[in-house]
Amino acid sequence: MKFIVFEGLDGSGKTTLIKKLSQELDQSRIHHIHTREPGGSKLGDELRHMILRTEGEAPVPRAELLMYEAARAQHVDRLIRPALADKKWVLCDRFSASSIAFQSGGRHISEDQVTWLNQFATGHLEPDLTVLLDLSAEESEKRRSGRNEAADRMEKEDRDFHERIRKSFLKQAESPTWLTLNAALNVETLHSQLMHHLRGLKWL
Amino acid sequence: MKFIVFEGLDGSGKTTLIKKLSQELDQSRIHHIHTREPGGSKLGDELRHMILRTEGEAPVPRAELLMYEAARAQHVDRLIRPALADKKWVLCDRFSASSIAFQSGGRHISEDQVTWLNQFATGHLEPDLTVLLDLSAEESEKRRSGRNEAADRMEKEDRDFHERIRKSFLKQAESPTWLTLNAALNVETLHSQLMHHLRGLKWL
Repeated sequence: MKFIVFEGLDGSGKTTLIKKLSQELDQSRIHHIHTREPGGSKLGDELRHMILRTEGEAPVPRAELLMYEAARAQHVDRLIRPALADKKWVLCDRFSASSIAFQSGGRHISEDQVTWLNQFATGHLEPDLTVLLDLSAEESEKRRSGRNEAADRMEKEDRDFHERIRKSFLKQAESPTWLTLNAALNVETLHSQLMHHLRGLKWL
Repeated sequence: MKFIVFEGLDGSGKTTLIKKLSQELDQSRIHHIHTREPGGSKLGDELRHMILRTEGEAPVPRAELLMYEAARAQHVDRLIRPALADKKWVLCDRFSASSIAFQSGGRHISEDQVTWLNQFATGHLEPDLTVLLDLSAEESEKRRSGRNEAADRMEKEDRDFHERIRKSFLKQAESPTWLTLNAALNVETLHSQLMHHLRGLKWL
């Protein structure tokens, strides 16, 4: 089994790419689950709502990070580890790297502190592969504004915030367990680049 | 201004003692606030409900701790630090020491990890004085069962859990900034012991 995480700014096409990979895995009869953060459990979804809503009392940055990490601990213990133990692949939309990007890059909490919290929340679980869909903050903004839904609290942050997040993702993607794709390409191309990479790893 | 925290098992009489101290401070025209954890903010109260409710999905121990710490970060930034900056005394029902007692003593998360999280959530804010109302787990259980309200998720834990919490409080209370009172005494006696201590410190 493999634990694959998809990261990138909102609008970068993570969901579409995960769905295409999921279909591919179905065809190869590889058992897998598709999940996302924050969320992945009932409690996680409640926390997601409290973090992202734009009405009501907004969490201060440290509280925001701690709520994401609480949702993550629940997600890891209740869904991700059981699925991996059950020999299923896990395809996850966002994981620890998003906390580094958003709460350290975006909110200026020290990266050491976010890393400590990530390790505590996940019990040191790390993805086998992280796929970064790299997109400019400008393009992310354009794509989000084309959606028929209200912007959440993160999406409402300014372009500079999203630029810092992109930079953090690109820096993290220097690790050998990351694959960076150019999200400006069409989804067919992105999917075939991803499949090429997975075959290169002999996972498929 | 002083930041005074009250700790102890449920039923140890924290609320009553805080109210009596509050009246005393009113008479001395000392501005102060009375607050509690988890809670102290709208977001904190929502987290409190999610942590303590007995229906729905229970948080795993690490998620539970992270939710308490999220509520604490919000509480410190939005209520406690502003009150202290405003020269008010803060009387708080439970604080970081409860996380050491419940999540380390009770749930067996390492004390080093809980301490790290306490310092992160509070930005290293520590009480000037912590008053421990020491009560046996047996007596706590008796007093709680006499209340006209359903037990919350913490209260429903077994006696051994509450014994471990008591032991943790007593160990923490070896610090010079703690005052340990015997919660089996009547409230008038407890109050006069507390007043005696505060006068000894020249705070009143």
